[in-house]
Formats: sequence, C-alpha cells, structure tokens
Amino acid sequence: MAAAQKITPRAQDFSEWYNDVIMQAELADYSPVRGCMVIRPHGYRIWELMQRALDDQIRATGHQNAYFPLFIPMSFLAKEAEHVEGFAKEVALVTHTRLKATGKSGAQAVMVDPESALEEPLVVRPTSETIIYAMFAKWIQSYRDLPLLLNQWCNIVRWELRTRLFLRTTEFLWQEGHTAHATEPEAEAEARQMLGVYRAFQEQWMAMPVITGQKTESEKFAGAVRTYALEALMQDNKALQAGTSHHLGQNFAKAFEVKYQTAAGGLEYVWNTSWGVTTRMIGGLVLTHGDDHGLVCPPRLAPVQVAIVPIWKSDDERAQVAAVAGQVKAELDRAGVRVALDLRDTLKPGAKYFEWEAKGVPLRLEIGPRDVAAGQVMAARRTGGKAPLRLDAVVALTAQALDELQAALFTAARERREAHSIRGVTKGQFIEFMKGGGGFAYGGFCGSAACEAEIKRETGATVRLLPDPEFRSPEPPKTCVWCGKPSVAEAVWAQAY
Amino acid sequence: MAAAQKITPRAQDFSEWYNDVIMQAELADYSPVRGCMVIRPHGYRIWELMQRALDDQIRATGHQNAYFPLFIPMSFLAKEAEHVEGFAKEVALVTHTRLKATGKSGAQAVMVDPESALEEPLVVRPTSETIIYAMFAKWIQSYRDLPLLLNQWCNIVRWELRTRLFLRTTEFLWQEGHTAHATEPEAEAEARQMLGVYRAFQEQWMAMPVITGQKTESEKFAGAVRTYALEALMQDNKALQAGTSHHLGQNFAKAFEVKYQTAAGGLEYVWNTSWGVTTRMIGGLVLTHGDDHGLVCPPRLAPVQVAIVPIWKSDDERAQVAAVAGQVKAELDRAGVRVALDLRDTLKPGAKYFEWEAKGVPLRLEIGPRDVAAGQVMAARRTGGKAPLRLDAVVALTAQALDELQAALFTAARERREAHSIRGVTKGQFIEFMKGGGGFAYGGFCGSAACEAEIKRETGATVRLLPDPEFRSPEPPKTCVWCGKPSVAEAVWAQAY
Repeated sequence: MAAAQKITPRAQDFSEWYNDVIMQAELADYSPVRGCMVIRPHGYRIWELMQRALDDQIRATGHQNAYFPLFIPMSFLAKEAEHVEGFAKEVALVTHTRLKATGKSGAQAVMVDPESALEEPLVVRPTSETIIYAMFAKWIQSYRDLPLLLNQWCNIVRWELRTRLFLRTTEFLWQEGHTAHATEPEAEAEARQMLGVYRAFQEQWMAMPVITGQKTESEKFAGAVRTYALEALMQDNKALQAGTSHHLGQNFAKAFEVKYQTAAGGLEYVWNTSWGVTTRMIGGLVLTHGDDHGLVCPPRLAPVQVAIVPIWKSDDERAQVAAVAGQVKAELDRAGVRVALDLRDTLKPGAKYFEWEAKGVPLRLEIGPRDVAAGQVMAARRTGGKAPLRLDAVVALTAQALDELQAALFTAARERREAHSIRGVTKGQFIEFMKGGGGFAYGGFCGSAACEAEIKRETGATVRLLPDPEFRSPEPPKTCVWCGKPSVAEAVWAQAY
Repeated sequence: MAAAQKITPRAQDFSEWYNDVIMQAELADYSPVRGCMVIRPHGYRIWELMQRALDDQIRATGHQNAYFPLFIPMSFLAKEAEHVEGFAKEVALVTHTRLKATGKSGAQAVMVDPESALEEPLVVRPTSETIIYAMFAKWIQSYRDLPLLLNQWCNIVRWELRTRLFLRTTEFLWQEGHTAHATEPEAEAEARQMLGVYRAFQEQWMAMPVITGQKTESEKFAGAVRTYALEALMQDNKALQAGTSHHLGQNFAKAFEVKYQTAAGGLEYVWNTSWGVTTRMIGGLVLTHGDDHGLVCPPRLAPVQVAIVPIWKSDDERAQVAAVAGQVKAELDRAGVRVALDLRDTLKPGAKYFEWEAKGVPLRLEIGPRDVAAGQVMAARRTGGKAPLRLDAVVALTAQALDELQAALFTAARERREAHSIRGVTKGQFIEFMKGGGGFAYGGFCGSAACEAEIKRETGATVRLLPDPEFRSPEPPKTCVWCGKPSVAEAVWAQAY
C-alpha cells in the first residue's frame, strides 16, 4: 500500500482533512466510475458493525428482511406524481441489454447493440417505494395481513453531480424499511418508533448526538405526507442529515391500489411508512470524532478496538514481550474484544502508533520489557492520555477504558454541538452567526416557503427540522427570526452537507 | 396472504412442483420486472443464515470484505478479450441519467431524456473482475502487499432469456472472492482452498452432497485459466452447478497492469483467483430435500428449526397447554434454537401442521393436555416419524433430533445420488441412461470439444466436470465413452440446470 502521508490539519482545510482521513484510514477510495467509491475493508467492517447493531433493533421491533429487484420499470416510478418529480433528474436508466463487436481491439472492441433496446427502460432504484408497494398490492388482502413490516439492505443509485466520499455518492448502501398499516395512527407510531431506533443507534453506538423533528414541506421526501429526520452537527458546524423516517399516508397505496378488507367487510387503502439510513453515517462518524491524526472510532463500532504494540530492542526482548502480548491478545479475544497484535518487524513502534491512530483504534496497549517486569501494559487512549494497566486485570480494565472512551466521545460531541447552538436570536445575530462559522440556530419560523428560500439565498442555511418537544427552547418563539411575522413553529437552521 | 394451495406432486410435474414449493413456503415471488424475483422473508432468512456461515469461513481463511461499484465502464469489460465475449450478450447497460416530462399523466408521464446520454455507457456488473482488478493495480505495488484477499457480498445482473426462481434470474445475490498472489502455486492453492470451503458448507450446512473437479475448456469461466466447480444431483436427476472457483492466471493482471515489485527488485504480474456462490443455492436446497408437502430445510439453515403447536379444545385446556408450550419455547430460545410458538386461534392444528411443513420446519412439537399430564411433547420430524420427548429433557432431546435430521438428510441425498450414478458404461448404455431419466454418468473422455458438442446435441448431457481423485472410478477409463478414442481424463456427464 502507499506510504503514509500527512493529514491536512482541520484548521487549514477541513474538506481536505476529511478526504485525507478517509484515505489514510483506508476507509474508502475513489473508483474509475464517476461518483462511485470503493469501500475498503476497514470502512466496510464499520458498515458491517453498524448493520449488525441496527439489524438487531429492526428485528426486535418486529420487522423481517426481504430483497426486492434492483430495477424498477420507468412507468412505476411515474405512478406517484411528487415521487417521480423528486427523482427524475438523478436516475440511472438501463435501456439496452447487449454489447456488439466493433471490429477494433482492446477497450474499443465493443459498443451498445442498438437492436437490444428494451421496450420499457428500467430505472436503477433510487429508493424502492414503487416496486415494493406493487408487491404489497399482491400480498395484502385482509386486515389479517396487516401490519406488514419489511426491511431490506441494498445498494441505491442516485445520479449526483457533486459527490463526496460517503456523504454523497452516486451509489450508496442503505437499509430501507417499508411498512403497511390498517390505520393512520399506527403508521404514525411506526414512523416515530423507527426515528427512535435510529436515534438510539446514533447516540449509543456512533456516539453522535442528534436532534430529531419534522422536515418542512420543501425538505420532505418526494411522495411523503410527513418526513421526520435526525440531524447532527459536524465539527465544521455544518449539519448532517443522518437518517429519515417518512409517514407516506395513502399516497403510494392509492398509486398502487394497495387495499385491504376491513374486519367489518369494507375495502380501505393501507397507510405506509418508509425509513432509511445509509453509508453516509460513516462520513458522519469521521466528521464528528476525527482529529488531525486521523479517524477516531467509537469503541462499539471499531473494527479494531485494541491494538497491542510490543516494544523490543533485542531478540531476547522480542521473545519475552511477544509472549506476554500474545497472552493479552488471547485473553481479550476470549472476552470478545476486537484486538490486533502488531508483531511486524518492518516498522518501528512509532510508525505503528501512527498507523493505528490514523485508523481510529480507540485503545493502544504498549508492552515493553519494563512493563513485563512491572506486570503492566501502558494503555494509550486515542483521545489522549496514557496510563498503566495491571496485567492481572487487563480484560476488565480494558473493557472499562473502552466504555469510558465511548461515553466521553458522546459527551464531547454533545458539548461541542451545544457550544455551537444559539437560541432566540435577532435577524442580525442570525446572519452574523451563519457568516461566522454557523451551527444550529433555533428560532421562530413563519412557515412560508418564500422566507425559507430567502434565508437560504442570503445565509446558506436551511431549516434542518422543526424540533421535537425535547429539543425546543423553554420559551416558544413568538415571531419569525427572518420576517418578524408570527411564528407557527420553532425551527432549527444550519448550513448543511 | 393467499389461501394455502395444493402442491403439484413431483411425479406429476417436477417443474411445477418446484415453483409450488417456493410459493407455498413463501421463499420468493415473481416481480413485475422481467426475470427478477422478490426474495420474501422466509427465503431471505435462509440466505442470511447461509451468509453468516460462509462469511465466517471466508474470514477464517484470511479474507476481508469490501464493496466495489455496481457499475463498470463498458471499456473495462472489453479489456480482457475472452471475458467480454462471454458476457456481451447478457449485460444490462446504463446509457442515460434523467427522465423528462411527456406532458401526459400517470404511468406515461415520463420518458428518457435524450440529452442525458452518458459519454461511455456503464455495464451493471455481471461479475466484478474488471472493476476490482483496476483497483488492485492502484493498491498493489510490492510483494509486501501480497497476497491481497478480498470478498464482496452483492447483487449481480445477467440478462437471462429463460429464467427460473432462484436457479436463473436476471438479478441474483452472491459473494465473489477476488485475490492476488505473488506466484502461480499460491493462486492455485487459493482456488483449491475455496472450493474446499464451499464443499464443507454445502455438505455440512445444506446437507447437499457435491462432487468437485475441473471444468472443460468449453465450460470454464470467460477469462479463467482453469475453473473448478461443485456439482450436486437434484431429485429429477439433473445436475446443479453449486459454485465455482477460478484460477485466473495472469489474464486480468495483464489486461489491467496489476504488477508488483518482487523482493529481488523485479517487476511481475500478479496471479489472480475469483470464486463465488449465489442465491441459486436456495434452489439447490429445495431441489435436494423438498417433498410433496413442501420445503424440507436442513436444521442448520432453517429460519424456524422447531415449531410448537399447542392443541386444545376448551379455554381451560388452552391456558394449560399454552403455559407449558411457552416454557418449552423459552427453554429452547435460551439454548439458541430458532423456535416459533403457534398460538393462533384462527387455525386448527392440522392447518398449522400443513403450513409449517410447507415451510420446511424440521421438527414440530405438539403439546396437548394428555402430553402435559404425561410430562412429554410429541415430536414430529419433517422427514417422517413421531415420538414423545420427555419435557424434563426437551432441550437436549430437541438438539439431538435436529442433529439426527441434519445427518439423515445428507445421507439420504448422497444415497439418492449414488443410486443415480453409473460408471464404466458403453455408448449405448450412456444414451439409454440419459434418455431414461439421467443422473451422473462417469466415463472416459477424449478431450475433444467436438465430441462434447455431439454428446450434448444427442443426449442433452454436458461434461459437468473432470472429477477430483476422490470421486474418480477405481479403474481409470481407457477410452472415450462416445468416440472410443483414448481417454485423456475421466469425466462426469449429466443433463444440467
């Protein structure tokens, strides 16, 4: 692999820093396909750990996994008017099914065979409401078939013009839940429940604090009645939408004729929800916790939680420390800790530290001859601080250190967010705040799309969401922060990814 | 869901039986997209259990998971001449990226925007050698970067004209391993090792006996030097290719300039392997073990291993048996058994038996008032036979029954295969055998593609593989079973899926 390179400091160029961290941690790489990235093993392992934790919660709340086709007939997408309008400009379209020889050789050897044109073009799924609800219409007949609670893990394609590793890529990975219910309140409860599942995951696993609430009309999902979302504040004070949960009402049920017979014998349309989180969360993890040395991975999602680096000068010392390090690794393995023992002879300890730090490993255990003699290892926390751990209690002390690290990352991120949130500001203060770096600005909102558009034009900030009660200011704002008309709801503004 | 329908008996129409089992067990369903199916929760759970077991083995042998783009630039596919020839007639091609309004409404509201044509069309991956080895060229510089051992779980598209649920679908799911090695023997050992991993999985988890060996030139993977394969014999005596492992030599390394610096300072091309198994295995599982009542699922891959059906006539009895059934469920849950307790009031026990049988549940525990009084449950095995199990040892006895079922399914399938294998036949016997139902025919092969083609034309049989030593006949055949010329290798012929 390429020789280690320097990571651009955040203060110098935040955007370069972000790319450098991803490349140095080997989370992902650019691919030869425009806008598509390769997720490398270290990044993909984080995704797998995310999947495992989220999937457990999705199952625990009664959902089952299934798999629906990658392709959607063009006419299906068009059945829900708002939906197709929302996605028309960013869909990959399959139109032909064969290549033919050109008579040339090498890369120019083939061309699209015009005789293989499809009668109806296929859309590579930008989201699966239309194909899934077409199947729901086949499966749902009676109230006994409800609720139908499905989820799928898959790849998604949206033809984005400006892409960034993990945050916005033409192809990305996600899960999308799709449910059908007999009544509106049940669908509403479901959309709300899954928002809660996402919040618990992002806070407890990613150590990424989020605020929750509802999107405005102009920011909601194309085809939804209401969109709920989670928003997190990154280190550059830009907001990241970390997940969404949609109450779809009967919009898709009507477009796809998904009806059920009620207990009383009537025929009603079902109520749908859909909800999803994506590989974008890995970008959120980098932007929340990373530092100038590289990735900082919360222990619960770290592919390697503990890296053991033995230190030796002579062959005798090597044998001695390697033996003890091997024992520590075996004990931690048995305890279910994800641990790597770095016995490479080709690198000095300092170079190893550098590598494991860049990869975000939360805890490094250094073992030299003096440590062995003293019955201890030196534990260096990725977030700073070094202290000896007694060898005879290494498993318990390691677990404790990882728990402390997990909690400390969350606390630090929440404090940072609160330090960059303002409430009850005047229009002038709002403008200054957005100019001066930004963050979450809470204030009254008149509800008008025109006001929303003007704020965006003048400050770059958008309504991230109308916050849930828990996140609202103690005093409900009386007037719109921008136009001064009566406020219909408190809103949170920020510049966003 | 739809009312239970009868399953066509195998003897009446094997092909209808196969589709009926899949629909009744709710493994999959037809989708509105030509050749693409929906994998329903019961089928997808089997896939997840397969993934978990295989992934553990793929990791245990030193591989890491990663994720590469869905799209491959058309010119990449063309770089390896045999490869593009093999896939040119079955690729989905993305040519445009926007829809535009037609002015009509509903399903005719949009059309492909001709102004959104891509400069270079993209192929939806039919396999990922080309895109992965393009990345290998970027990542591999030195012998220290070798071996590079990656795997990905993903979806694949091959534009098939004749499709069958699970066995041949336009889109399917699979894993594809891709590795790079410094030497040819290492690549050979890798291709062989993964064939062994697949065999162990298919025999020990799927209870599906396989023979292993090498494909002939005409059946090998487009771009490979050698293809190794696993072949299983289905109940209709047709062979199913259950997985492949390719030694790719330096073909792709040369096409994509994947070179490494040797320890001595020279520059060499790497040696590659690739290997994969797909959701087709679920079809193999149905065709190996299913019966006229539906799916028969080997316990290790059964989404539900044990279904508990309480039997009652009065409300008092219901309370009594439900309490005991609940205890049994809790005990089995704790022991890690996948168990369902069927307390539905809307179905009689017989209807419940019918459903769980169709879904392939290996063991059913029936609990009635008399069983409770006698301190036992009745255990009905999916493959036949009913016997009481003592309640005070229900966990151990259930585990034992599941182990016995797993072993019995494998033994029965192997015996069936051997009963439909013939060796050392004359040409006349060979023709009769293939006409009379078929199976595995072992015999001498002259090695000529012309002979191979003629056999296929006249009997429908193809060389499934040149078997590994373990599967060869005690006496090496001397002459080709078809043309009588000297045999260069023993071959196994069969009609195949």
